[in-house]
Amino acid sequence: MRPSKRAPDELRSVSLERAVSKHAEGSCLVRFGDTQVLCTASLSEGVPGWLRGGGKGWVTAEYGMLPRSTNERMRREAAQGRQGGRTHEIQRLIGRSLRAVVDLKALGEKQITVDCDVIQADGGTRTASITGAWVALHDALAWMRARNMVGDNVLVDHVAAISCGIHQSEPVLDLDYAEDSQAGTDANFVITGKGGLVEVQATAEGTPFSEDEFNQLLGLARKGIGRLVDLQKMAVS
Amino acid sequence: MRPSKRAPDELRSVSLERAVSKHAEGSCLVRFGDTQVLCTASLSEGVPGWLRGGGKGWVTAEYGMLPRSTNERMRREAAQGRQGGRTHEIQRLIGRSLRAVVDLKALGEKQITVDCDVIQADGGTRTASITGAWVALHDALAWMRARNMVGDNVLVDHVAAISCGIHQSEPVLDLDYAEDSQAGTDANFVITGKGGLVEVQATAEGTPFSEDEFNQLLGLARKGIGRLVDLQKMAVS
Amino acid sequence: MRPSKRAPDELRSVSLERAVSKHAEGSCLVRFGDTQVLCTASLSEGVPGWLRGGGKGWVTAEYGMLPRSTNERMRREAAQGRQGGRTHEIQRLIGRSLRAVVDLKALGEKQITVDCDVIQADGGTRTASITGAWVALHDALAWMRARNMVGDNVLVDHVAAISCGIHQSEPVLDLDYAEDSQAGTDANFVITGKGGLVEVQATAEGTPFSEDEFNQLLGLARKGIGRLVDLQKMAVS
Amino acid sequence: MRPSKRAPDELRSVSLERAVSKHAEGSCLVRFGDTQVLCTASLSEGVPGWLRGGGKGWVTAEYGMLPRSTNERMRREAAQGRQGGRTHEIQRLIGRSLRAVVDLKALGEKQITVDCDVIQADGGTRTASITGAWVALHDALAWMRARNMVGDNVLVDHVAAISCGIHQSEPVLDLDYAEDSQAGTDANFVITGKGGLVEVQATAEGTPFSEDEFNQLLGLARKGIGRLVDLQKMAVS
Amino acid sequence: MRPSKRAPDELRSVSLERAVSKHAEGSCLVRFGDTQVLCTASLSEGVPGWLRGGGKGWVTAEYGMLPRSTNERMRREAAQGRQGGRTHEIQRLIGRSLRAVVDLKALGEKQITVDCDVIQADGGTRTASITGAWVALHDALAWMRARNMVGDNVLVDHVAAISCGIHQSEPVLDLDYAEDSQAGTDANFVITGKGGLVEVQATAEGTPFSEDEFNQLLGLARKGIGRLVDLQKMAVS
Amino acid sequence: MRPSKRAPDELRSVSLERAVSKHAEGSCLVRFGDTQVLCTASLSEGVPGWLRGGGKGWVTAEYGMLPRSTNERMRREAAQGRQGGRTHEIQRLIGRSLRAVVDLKALGEKQITVDCDVIQADGGTRTASITGAWVALHDALAWMRARNMVGDNVLVDHVAAISCGIHQSEPVLDLDYAEDSQAGTDANFVITGKGGLVEVQATAEGTPFSEDEFNQLLGLARKGIGRLVDLQKMAVS
Repeated sequence: MRPSKRAPDELRSVSLERAVSKHAEGSCLVRFGDTQVLCTASLSEGVPGWLRGGGKGWVTAEYGMLPRSTNERMRREAAQGRQGGRTHEIQRLIGRSLRAVVDLKALGEKQITVDCDVIQADGGTRTASITGAWVALHDALAWMRARNMVGDNVLVDHVAAISCGIHQSEPVLDLDYAEDSQAGTDANFVITGKGGLVEVQATAEGTPFSEDEFNQLLGLARKGIGRLVDLQKMAVS
Repeated sequence: MRPSKRAPDELRSVSLERAVSKHAEGSCLVRFGDTQVLCTASLSEGVPGWLRGGGKGWVTAEYGMLPRSTNERMRREAAQGRQGGRTHEIQRLIGRSLRAVVDLKALGEKQITVDCDVIQADGGTRTASITGAWVALHDALAWMRARNMVGDNVLVDHVAAISCGIHQSEPVLDLDYAEDSQAGTDANFVITGKGGLVEVQATAEGTPFSEDEFNQLLGLARKGIGRLVDLQKMAVS
Repeated sequence: MRPSKRAPDELRSVSLERAVSKHAEGSCLVRFGDTQVLCTASLSEGVPGWLRGGGKGWVTAEYGMLPRSTNERMRREAAQGRQGGRTHEIQRLIGRSLRAVVDLKALGEKQITVDCDVIQADGGTRTASITGAWVALHDALAWMRARNMVGDNVLVDHVAAISCGIHQSEPVLDLDYAEDSQAGTDANFVITGKGGLVEVQATAEGTPFSEDEFNQLLGLARKGIGRLVDLQKMAVS
Repeated sequence: MRPSKRAPDELRSVSLERAVSKHAEGSCLVRFGDTQVLCTASLSEGVPGWLRGGGKGWVTAEYGMLPRSTNERMRREAAQGRQGGRTHEIQRLIGRSLRAVVDLKALGEKQITVDCDVIQADGGTRTASITGAWVALHDALAWMRARNMVGDNVLVDHVAAISCGIHQSEPVLDLDYAEDSQAGTDANFVITGKGGLVEVQATAEGTPFSEDEFNQLLGLARKGIGRLVDLQKMAVS
Repeated sequence: MRPSKRAPDELRSVSLERAVSKHAEGSCLVRFGDTQVLCTASLSEGVPGWLRGGGKGWVTAEYGMLPRSTNERMRREAAQGRQGGRTHEIQRLIGRSLRAVVDLKALGEKQITVDCDVIQADGGTRTASITGAWVALHDALAWMRARNMVGDNVLVDHVAAISCGIHQSEPVLDLDYAEDSQAGTDANFVITGKGGLVEVQATAEGTPFSEDEFNQLLGLARKGIGRLVDLQKMAVS
Repeated sequence: MRPSKRAPDELRSVSLERAVSKHAEGSCLVRFGDTQVLCTASLSEGVPGWLRGGGKGWVTAEYGMLPRSTNERMRREAAQGRQGGRTHEIQRLIGRSLRAVVDLKALGEKQITVDCDVIQADGGTRTASITGAWVALHDALAWMRARNMVGDNVLVDHVAAISCGIHQSEPVLDLDYAEDSQAGTDANFVITGKGGLVEVQATAEGTPFSEDEFNQLLGLARKGIGRLVDLQKMAVS
């Protein structure tokens, strides 16, 4: 039995609340159970130096956690004077995931920065971030389309993410913090609406895992992501 | 007429939502109109080195703004590798304001850190922070009292804060961003429940102000803070 | 009785020594008793990016303390790799105070940076800095006028600053370090030659203060600043 | 045809040169074709604070690139004052991979730090680092065993890593830089001597990849890692 | 003819003003012509970690320049977030020079930090710093002796420093800024009262120099340092 | 007898291996006994801002040590977030030494950066760096000449460096780490092929040294540098 009492293939209660920011071109407050991430998409003219003049745009992401989003208060990265390795890792992952479903040529020489700030953490902050960031990005592009700044061909598919893990020998979907801290293997999958794999990251915590176990995790992830993409569709319709 | 259509002595709609964090010992989401600040109070054992062994506790604060809490996206302080002068100024002000109503001896050698993170900014983030931080601190102390870690004599009074300014020659209360950016003089007052002044900061933007104008601003502030303290009382009762 | 044996409304011995730097366009070594601050005004072509092309100039300030300007040696901020919050707070205050009496349009697209470096500290370094910085700025503008770079309408008034505090229940003027460390309330006033208020900062250390006490402090400050402005006039005449 | 003319399942010429450092307890210069990484394992007494007193040891890794290890000179991270996100990502991966085959209890309260410094880069620096780091770690443990500091049960298995990718629609093994920069999908696999999966990371560059493609990459990786583990065995025998 | 009109072996006017700081255990304002450096010696209990428990003390130095001590305003190192290479080089040199005439065993486990802050620069700031630092250190040790904290055997000799250079083919002593910026070779000598060499640094700016030229510079330096040591003796007597 | 058993005027075995980098325009792996430094010369278009438009080029150097190049592992400067004073000192010395034999006008507005990275340290890393950097620079200029980017008049002479010291009262050449840590005086000489002095740095560790001792060290250095220049000539011929 999972600590959360959920079935092995059961997601937590997920919600995607749009337009939560007065200022951002697109925004979404995403909840995976007690995990809450505020995603805002900000448009800026111009692109990073290495892209300038090529006619292509850029989509990037930044990630942060509020100091008491976690069980124990964490030191504020701004006060420490540097972002940690985990922060860098996650924000690069979010950016790559979004770019996998964006036609940067169709965007033109503009940049969209999606900030994912964890208001409350209970496991799965990176997967919630990607899932919510897609909604914020969608709405920023709608905002631009309404102003004739882009066509409707920039966003070419959905993308969502989910974690899976092996908890007491059983593969389970969407780990919360209690489950994650006991899990033997921890995996994150980023998959498009059409089912294409964008990113696969699986890590053994302690003993290595087998190919068979990996495939069971991937099967769970496909199920979960199908449901997340449905929720994205409902949210933006 | 104020851009906000409010009467000169009229606060924005203010709300103080308690217990918004699953993890923090005390928390409050404070709203002054469109300004939203999440305040969490975190208890830690031990005090800064220079206080150790003296039997007294410490209350401190940190302040941050989410990158797109503002109209234009700001660069993340963690990414810049340093907190700016304005951040330092504000977090020192919040800490001093709270300590003015705390008996540090009665707290004992413990530290409470109140994090004030601006989710959305529309003027008055520092005054909203102080007002909400008091609620978070109150609840953290209640949490400690329930565990017999402190008595009920740590928090000796209420404290709240409000901004005032001179807008088109008229003194007005609780400026939002549109009003603040046109105001000739900008003042912040921190006042206790019993009416004692804790902090007064008034700054001329452009032309200097007169003693008479200052006194009108102080009069408005007293009114506003009376109302804020009432709201704190309702919130924690 | 004050530790300094001074009457409640008595300033320390104040001197403003001009032209102390071989290199700076304007300079002043200001002494408030044992507090000594070296103020140098440096002209540079061009203005910060956000002002460029607008035809207006900029006046800014930086503040620092020599490591052994204080009773206990402080760690050098350059060695720590960051300026502290207090430094940021003070240098922003000095800059705002000077700009309150400068016509930036009349200055044209040039920047004057006033460095205030504390050679020896004995309380009141920020108020001494503002008072001396005005002299350095005055002389830099005179240097420019002598070269036909500006007219004589850039500096529109005097500005000076003084601290006040409540020491053993008595409001007193111009606190030295010994008085400041025992004072119940600590206030700094920045006032122009014509008597306009530029900045008011009053902070309760411990118990809050009353409106009446505040007004007594303001009264003392007016007296002190009248005297400081007289000294500035003598210095530059 | 691959740019390198290699068969799809053909590794580059790999060598593992031991004992290349006069100072380190264990060391290995690993070459995957033109990629050269110097791995040194350094023993230190004591463990990080959060492990102290638990009787367990720690194995960690750091990664760096010489400024001209790459085709274009990169700015030195020490001169920039921070390690980039990619560096953090890779050094965390190396550390996790090594810990997957170490019995930290058997190590006792000691720390081994494996530094992986890229002398010359031509693709696959992280996988070469892991493969060489195992040899350096093996030799540091042998050095300790020779001094009766540990038993022979600390290192419980081999671990090696290899990259795979889809190059012009064909899954290929061990990409060099030229191949990597054209590859549609890029994957890194970390696998133990017994065939257990330790880490799987697959990333779509551009279009998403299918489950079938992923499985072909995994098949190639298994082959390559079998060969690398053989080379490790020869090297340390 | 030197720009300064001095004879080749003529020092600038040098003064060593003692006890210029109210707070420091020892202090000296040293002037070499228009170069002015404030040297303060600060005592602290305890020594750096690597010396702890060995019964020996430590003498170290820090160096800084006020932003407008130079002809063009320099950016403040504290604002830049790092001390430059030149600063590091000079403060290490001052520390080594002082330690050459201190019996660290006789000092006991205490540290003296000498801060050398350049108030005004006109060439030779590092040599003026060393010469003045000796006086500050002398006085701090006298302060300690008066309190029976040390004996009179800590300071075993004088030490002073001077620059020399080749200006228009002629070896000259004690270069000011105008001479230094035209000099072909630039040398700094640190020599004890008894004539022992502590530090020799000679650098070709442009064309290399000959052994003969070097020996002429050393001869000049000996003369100059003899005079500086006489001035130190007069100052502390 | 020296710990190394070498005669007082005997160099360690020195080798200069060229073209060790696949990427750099010029490179050299220099060995002075067990000291190994990898020197790479990288060409970049353009010069630092303060040289722009003057038609002159720039040659600069950076220096680093791998964490376990030393007997005890050092903390990585990139992880510490700053380069230490010793690093700054050495890289400035290498840059000055190289520029002493380069006609920057003949180079034109280009920059060559020579990175000297210590693979293994056993004393004399800075002198080995300079000696090897000359070879890397030579080869980068040859690479440019082969592409008609410069003439053959850029490099006007050889330059090499060697350390000397007084070991148990005897002046000796080219100290290894064991000798260096016991030496009473430590000197580094940078001398051109024609015998001109570029840089002389001599430091007393403990007791001061005499002029006679200094001259003996210089005599040894001349001998050693003659041999090093011969080795450079053989290497590049």
